[in-house]
Amino acid sequence: MDNTHQKKMQKRKELYEKKVLARQEKRGLFMINTGKGKGKSSAAFGLALRMIGHGRKVGVVQFIKGAWQTGERKAFSHWGDLVEWHTLGEGFTWETQDKERDIVSCQNAWNTALRLLQDESLSLLILDELNIALRYHYLDVHAVVRAIMARPAGLSVVVTGRNAPVELVAEADTVTEMDNIRHHAQNGVMAQEGIEY
Amino acid sequence: MDNTHQKKMQKRKELYEKKVLARQEKRGLFMINTGKGKGKSSAAFGLALRMIGHGRKVGVVQFIKGAWQTGERKAFSHWGDLVEWHTLGEGFTWETQDKERDIVSCQNAWNTALRLLQDESLSLLILDELNIALRYHYLDVHAVVRAIMARPAGLSVVVTGRNAPVELVAEADTVTEMDNIRHHAQNGVMAQEGIEY
Repeated sequence: MDNTHQKKMQKRKELYEKKVLARQEKRGLFMINTGKGKGKSSAAFGLALRMIGHGRKVGVVQFIKGAWQTGERKAFSHWGDLVEWHTLGEGFTWETQDKERDIVSCQNAWNTALRLLQDESLSLLILDELNIALRYHYLDVHAVVRAIMARPAGLSVVVTGRNAPVELVAEADTVTEMDNIRHHAQNGVMAQEGIEY
Repeated sequence: MDNTHQKKMQKRKELYEKKVLARQEKRGLFMINTGKGKGKSSAAFGLALRMIGHGRKVGVVQFIKGAWQTGERKAFSHWGDLVEWHTLGEGFTWETQDKERDIVSCQNAWNTALRLLQDESLSLLILDELNIALRYHYLDVHAVVRAIMARPAGLSVVVTGRNAPVELVAEADTVTEMDNIRHHAQNGVMAQEGIEY
């Protein structure tokens, strides 16, 4: 038995436990996954899985992606009653090429989000790619912040998408930036089933 | 109808499609999720969900976490035959405080990983927290790189954990760094069911 290692780890354990004990609060969190890297939506869906594993209800509103992400949609459909899934976007804005239509579809998605933001039965609400809708000013960022901050105390919210607006970042409990150190698309690898969708 | 918008988006669409057409390769990818931020493992599990949604098989080997992440484990247990899950770690090294035991448990996990790295029926293998085991030099990084690079062509691998070693980063198709812009633990919020585990 390595005593130096044991002592070092004992110290680390004490430090860790002290830190953990200092955290006393339990409540729904407002989290943002942003940045140019991979994993913003996937991490949100991974979190949904955690919630579902504990028998808690999850809501998903997809603001931009239309036909995409069929993989996780299919997977989540296994838990019919634990997941309320709404894909209200029609694809990226360069696919529709119609600003008015994009605004209407974002507004529809936001109306659904507003309803779910008041749903006491939910533990987690994922507002997927909401940052994109905000970036194009298709929604009023102040109205979005107000609604998120007025949610039930037990409800956690994850907002995903590049370029999270500062007004949103200012209010979040946790902001994670997914940064692209390297990406396979740069080396000619195409979007693949199970990886990108 | 806003013509300026339409033209701008048409241009963006053409650029996007040109970029996408340049990507012709389809193959299993080697991905790394690293950094100090939240979402490294969650993003990997979100990816697993995509694969499962398409009816593909996924393997998971957890090198460090023991009792943790029960949420996703429970959720994944729904797909018995599509998921092969191994939790072989016994917790963080400051919990066991026994270096010899940690090395043995990492070696066990690696033996399982080695077997799954040769399994032609898998589409995705998650080596969760492998970076931690490598950081403590509990495993030989060169042997790990060799085994990952010799995997079947259709198998994607995701390695998670802070401090990904340079030897691993050098070979990966995609490296994402999850960066902590802000974290709720800094503001006294404790680890919660459905959020951290």
